[in-house]
Amino acid sequence: MKYFIRYGEIGVKSRKIRKKFEKKLMKNIQSKLDCNFINDNGRIILLTDENEETVTDVLDHVFGIVSYSPVYETDTDKEKIKQLINKTITPLLDNRFNPENQTFAVKCRRVGEHHFSSQEMAAYVGSIIIELTNARVNLSNPDFNVYVEVRNNKTFVYYDKIKGLGGLPVGTQGRVVCLISGGIDSPIAAYQMLKRGCSVTLLHCDNAPYGKGTVEKVLKQADNLRKYSLGEEIRVYSIKYGQYLEHVIKEAPSRMTCVLCKSGMYQTAELLAKKEKANAIVDGSSIGQVASQTLNNIEASRYHCKMPIFSPLISLDKLEIESIAKKVGTYEISIIPDSGCGAVPKYPETHADLELTKKIIEDINQKEILEKVSESIQRIDV
Amino acid sequence: MKYFIRYGEIGVKSRKIRKKFEKKLMKNIQSKLDCNFINDNGRIILLTDENEETVTDVLDHVFGIVSYSPVYETDTDKEKIKQLINKTITPLLDNRFNPENQTFAVKCRRVGEHHFSSQEMAAYVGSIIIELTNARVNLSNPDFNVYVEVRNNKTFVYYDKIKGLGGLPVGTQGRVVCLISGGIDSPIAAYQMLKRGCSVTLLHCDNAPYGKGTVEKVLKQADNLRKYSLGEEIRVYSIKYGQYLEHVIKEAPSRMTCVLCKSGMYQTAELLAKKEKANAIVDGSSIGQVASQTLNNIEASRYHCKMPIFSPLISLDKLEIESIAKKVGTYEISIIPDSGCGAVPKYPETHADLELTKKIIEDINQKEILEKVSESIQRIDV
Repeated sequence: MKYFIRYGEIGVKSRKIRKKFEKKLMKNIQSKLDCNFINDNGRIILLTDENEETVTDVLDHVFGIVSYSPVYETDTDKEKIKQLINKTITPLLDNRFNPENQTFAVKCRRVGEHHFSSQEMAAYVGSIIIELTNARVNLSNPDFNVYVEVRNNKTFVYYDKIKGLGGLPVGTQGRVVCLISGGIDSPIAAYQMLKRGCSVTLLHCDNAPYGKGTVEKVLKQADNLRKYSLGEEIRVYSIKYGQYLEHVIKEAPSRMTCVLCKSGMYQTAELLAKKEKANAIVDGSSIGQVASQTLNNIEASRYHCKMPIFSPLISLDKLEIESIAKKVGTYEISIIPDSGCGAVPKYPETHADLELTKKIIEDINQKEILEKVSESIQRIDV
Repeated sequence: MKYFIRYGEIGVKSRKIRKKFEKKLMKNIQSKLDCNFINDNGRIILLTDENEETVTDVLDHVFGIVSYSPVYETDTDKEKIKQLINKTITPLLDNRFNPENQTFAVKCRRVGEHHFSSQEMAAYVGSIIIELTNARVNLSNPDFNVYVEVRNNKTFVYYDKIKGLGGLPVGTQGRVVCLISGGIDSPIAAYQMLKRGCSVTLLHCDNAPYGKGTVEKVLKQADNLRKYSLGEEIRVYSIKYGQYLEHVIKEAPSRMTCVLCKSGMYQTAELLAKKEKANAIVDGSSIGQVASQTLNNIEASRYHCKMPIFSPLISLDKLEIESIAKKVGTYEISIIPDSGCGAVPKYPETHADLELTKKIIEDINQKEILEKVSESIQRIDV
């Protein structure tokens, strides 16, 4: 079977960038699906012996695909085209297309030199379908579409344009380190970065002995995210972050624990990012979602991290995030109960003062202790 | 007329935060609409003499509203409720509710002590409607909903739940400085921050003499964004950024112009943010959208800005951004032609080296020149 694969923004890039993106897109698909490709001037045709369900399951998870279509191929020959239309449309009658009360339209594209125009081919195919079904044509608002694409001496027919995920092919945009907790937001932040073509490394700050049950959830989240990262490895690291929290609880004012916790996470992620050759940190922050996500706290907790921090969910409502999580399949994992964080103080600071935070960070020798704790960073997915 | 106003996430906050948010939500509505409120334990009821069109136009632009309903009120008295239902449902027959082939359901909520249960009231109202219309009940999947809310000695009836914008009330989350150009993305970045309750200051880096026509567009964008910022002022500043660009073009390698341009914008925004008591910078970056939006370039251009930079569109596709822009009304303004930027070199750097960028920034005395150019920052909307 053959499929047309359509991509979106790749098309507007320079020729060089486009070639690179197309190549990566095909490679990502091939990492999971036994298939070959013909790339005919930006028209990517996928060839495979796998069944449609298997193909669909792969293509529905590959970023960079705007839409795809199972296509039928024959020679550019009027009689052969007629045979192909008759053969392929017949099984669709009644179920997908009911000619008695539904209308149709034929859309024709043509590449190459032919003795007929696109309109003439569309009219010819229309006449075949009318002869077969007696259906009515409606060009402006049809119930059923028949697509014909004549490419030189080959002609392709298809009836479906299946929507893909959009975005850019994973692996075309460099690597980011995503902080991942047991919650709903952070896996979606990682998902959103995959969507725009980034390769993803996950870092989990394990708060034991102040909590438990999150490491297993994070590994499950990673497995789920891998479905959307075909062709690019997702590495998962964990750090024994409880050591740092213990130090913070002992040395700093208790209301500052959460700000100092977040501050340490960013800097730990930055240390890992340098090893991973990543250029940005990603987290699931959303302004105002919880008491700690105020502009003041965000400013104070990010000050000591030099790398860019992306928060793709910064302007999303909780319901919007949950809705993505349900589609992506991370929601069910996120709501598995875990112990929560026992380090959270009774009255966490909600408007941290930047200068005061800087002073406390110096007083508790944050940099030194983070470097020590970072020695415990290790991969947990191998 | 009266309206129920429903808010979402505000409801899950602590009592103190909730009260503050509710108060701001009501104040924001009142800044545009002549109205009063009753806040009955989180059930916000708006009272106004304005016509429905005027009210809808305001409520459709206020962040923090999840949904709202025009409601009819009477005493909690069976005969009066019957009269109210008959009077209010009759004008809806045929247009909104066709009893001959549509089903209905009554949903009842009750607050206070009554001699009937919610179910009994729902059954009673159902019987009134059946008597009037002979329509069929379908509780699981009705075509038409009748909502009855009994609140002590008052009863409210409504037929619509109109979706609001969601988000948080503007002005509850502090202020951010949004960089705004003549393009499609940056106004939407500002819009997204308003959505999560931030107050917004706009900064436009006017590239004259390397371009023209953007200042007028930015002022139009601000006017449009103000519809979504009821109760909070949007201030618009401009800086004579061409002076800085001139210096960069003269002193730095030409391929670095765009990275150094962006780097200067962030730092200029930071200078303004301090004056505006803002705690973050916002821009319309989206990874991979154009050649300059690579992780390397983003890292290099953000390094010298100490304040958090939010890029709410970082993971969105161009089509997604355009779709929001069309809904919000910024798209039509963005596509007004402007001259573009004449400072863009023939071969802009796409993978800036951080260390090299730092050196160039030092070599060109960026800090000094930015401080000088920043003296030209002035409000352009007064």
